[in-house]
Amino acid sequence: MKMHTLTIVGVGLIGGSVGLAVKGRGGAARVIGVGRKLSTLDEARRLGVIDEVSLDMADAVRRAEVAVFCTPVDHIADQVLACAAGCAPGTLLTDAGSTKAAIVGAVEGRLPRGVAFVGSHPLAGSEKRGPEHARADLFEGRLTVLTRTERTDPEALERAAAFWQALGSRVKVMSPEEHDRALALTSHLPHLAASALAGLLPPELSELTASGFRDGTRVAAGDPALWAAIFEQNRDAVLDALRLLRDRLTAYAAALNAGDRAALDALLTHAKRARDALGS
Amino acid sequence: MKMHTLTIVGVGLIGGSVGLAVKGRGGAARVIGVGRKLSTLDEARRLGVIDEVSLDMADAVRRAEVAVFCTPVDHIADQVLACAAGCAPGTLLTDAGSTKAAIVGAVEGRLPRGVAFVGSHPLAGSEKRGPEHARADLFEGRLTVLTRTERTDPEALERAAAFWQALGSRVKVMSPEEHDRALALTSHLPHLAASALAGLLPPELSELTASGFRDGTRVAAGDPALWAAIFEQNRDAVLDALRLLRDRLTAYAAALNAGDRAALDALLTHAKRARDALGS
Repeated sequence: MKMHTLTIVGVGLIGGSVGLAVKGRGGAARVIGVGRKLSTLDEARRLGVIDEVSLDMADAVRRAEVAVFCTPVDHIADQVLACAAGCAPGTLLTDAGSTKAAIVGAVEGRLPRGVAFVGSHPLAGSEKRGPEHARADLFEGRLTVLTRTERTDPEALERAAAFWQALGSRVKVMSPEEHDRALALTSHLPHLAASALAGLLPPELSELTASGFRDGTRVAAGDPALWAAIFEQNRDAVLDALRLLRDRLTAYAAALNAGDRAALDALLTHAKRARDALGS
Repeated sequence: MKMHTLTIVGVGLIGGSVGLAVKGRGGAARVIGVGRKLSTLDEARRLGVIDEVSLDMADAVRRAEVAVFCTPVDHIADQVLACAAGCAPGTLLTDAGSTKAAIVGAVEGRLPRGVAFVGSHPLAGSEKRGPEHARADLFEGRLTVLTRTERTDPEALERAAAFWQALGSRVKVMSPEEHDRALALTSHLPHLAASALAGLLPPELSELTASGFRDGTRVAAGDPALWAAIFEQNRDAVLDALRLLRDRLTAYAAALNAGDRAALDALLTHAKRARDALGS
């Protein structure tokens, strides 16, 4: 996929990695980065993540054939709608948000004719923030979920797929709701569990942690505001997932309490098989 | 600490790493490895982890000045008692078990005069198993907990400290009960949470996992039998820790359910600070 201008709204870890990947692969003649702080944008340009900086989101998006919104999930829909009005027909708008149903639902049916939005979620990231942690290979070999609804334009979906594939990603098409239910289990719940564990650690026991605790709580260092917005946008599925986890922990406690070694072994063995199947 | 003969009972990841570290630092003229399977022991000798192999645990321990038991926690006390009878006065027995109160309690007061046992727990390891994953630097910069009770011989405690320090470890002295309560939170609970999370993953969602899920569940690949024994030996503290985690998850659910963004932010922010304080 080759374009003249790509605009990235939100040049943090994800947006910055989109910029590095596109520029590294010659996917766009010009990459404009949009943000609220000129100092961050200038730093991103200095790092080679973007070519141009802009504080005027609508203007920068209007100048692009493709714009990708890499901002917090509770900002994306409003930003897309604010920018779409001025876009030329044929403009593709997409995003990198961790939730999809609320965003897609808020945008669909409200775009000018010929301007398309395709919800995307690259399953890549880190607890780190900022363009200084961006990586040209962040999406390589990873999966990006693209959403399709009854209103999705097939051609726009193909262009969005080509966009993420050009960054090295595989793509998978799901409905927004299917995405959100799955990610509640595979991403949002692990974040809550990590956060709950990290929050239980009395500071004086820090020295008694090893890799099990550190690996298990790593994502809890993620930005609280970003994650609170994700949980709120996917509330019902997250609450269902939390219930599953609490029930499962209750099963471990019951087995332990009853001295039921066979039940405990079965729980641990089932989980080990599931984890082994994932690979490292 | 320099000795003629060190015997390692159980030459897996931990026992093998003790062997590599001692041999790499010239800490013993001879390292005997004891196990149940000759093929594993021969492999460990071929890898340079041990110098001699033995299937006769009591004999191999009798020939050493120091013996370290790196076997499952539910075997250690019986093995120590089975070997101690034939040991010369001055022999130091220690272990690497993840629980301490049950082991120390079962051994204390039952040793021949002049033979000492000091409970140890190096906070290092991996979900991997076997001497092929042993590393000479496994203990470097890590912490080893040594236990002290009213019956602990101060000179034996010093020798045990010198032993682990010679492998690059820092040491910290705690009571067995204090160790077990702390490790319930810092190690046993994270393992249960990882196991519960991994066990909830439907296989068809595997492709939708990313680093959050993978990091958060890594330890769930550990050996179920080893961990079931750890949980059973530390049952009360583990049940208390499980209760804390379930209550904390309930607090996240309540905040989310009530749409109480301030409460959700507070939970996430507190946890982030705790995790940030740990470093990577």
